[in-house]
Amino acid sequence: MHSVSESCDKSFVAAAKLIGDKWSLQIVHSLAQSETQRFNELQETVGGICPGTLSARLDQLEKSEIIVRQVFAEVPPRVEYRLTAKGIALLPVVKALKDWSSQHLETARVLDPAH
Amino acid sequence: MHSVSESCDKSFVAAAKLIGDKWSLQIVHSLAQSETQRFNELQETVGGICPGTLSARLDQLEKSEIIVRQVFAEVPPRVEYRLTAKGIALLPVVKALKDWSSQHLETARVLDPAH
Repeated sequence: MHSVSESCDKSFVAAAKLIGDKWSLQIVHSLAQSETQRFNELQETVGGICPGTLSARLDQLEKSEIIVRQVFAEVPPRVEYRLTAKGIALLPVVKALKDWSSQHLETARVLDPAH
Repeated sequence: MHSVSESCDKSFVAAAKLIGDKWSLQIVHSLAQSETQRFNELQETVGGICPGTLSARLDQLEKSEIIVRQVFAEVPPRVEYRLTAKGIALLPVVKALKDWSSQHLETARVLDPAH
């Protein structure tokens, strides 16, 4: 019954599974603010994330080729994260979600008094 | 250090937490295909979701005023779900994610052979 639309939407489902968690888009959003960021900087800007979760999400985003992890041979070693072209291409999603949130979450009570 | 940007992004963080799971945007996407849908129809189009999870996500989306649940006094009772104006306003997010997924997930190997 829904096989055609389901087939068309396979990549969308994959995308929702890939970045569909409450942290991934926040990490992408944070990395879009400055070209590279270190782990501690990310942990500070993505407020409320615990180190283990941030580490797991960064691993996942790196495996999905959305971010790149670069290790500099310094003492102590410096590790930086930045968006790939594929990650930068996610910014319209971030922008659309920002637009929606600024219109519908901050002013929700004013705009939708009936709900 | 990051209090200004953090304050600016509060609504984005709230949005990421609200619809940042692998199912919510798929449910919104599914409801955008036809004006109303019943539970079983949603379960079919949002492939792979178990009834308990679908029920929980629908509850959350209803509380967030993204969808409306309408019960018709029939025997047996008919329950339909549809997007609110706030939910329809999420469609640009769905579209942006669809665009990204069709460009970067289906053809990832072809476009990014170096990764």
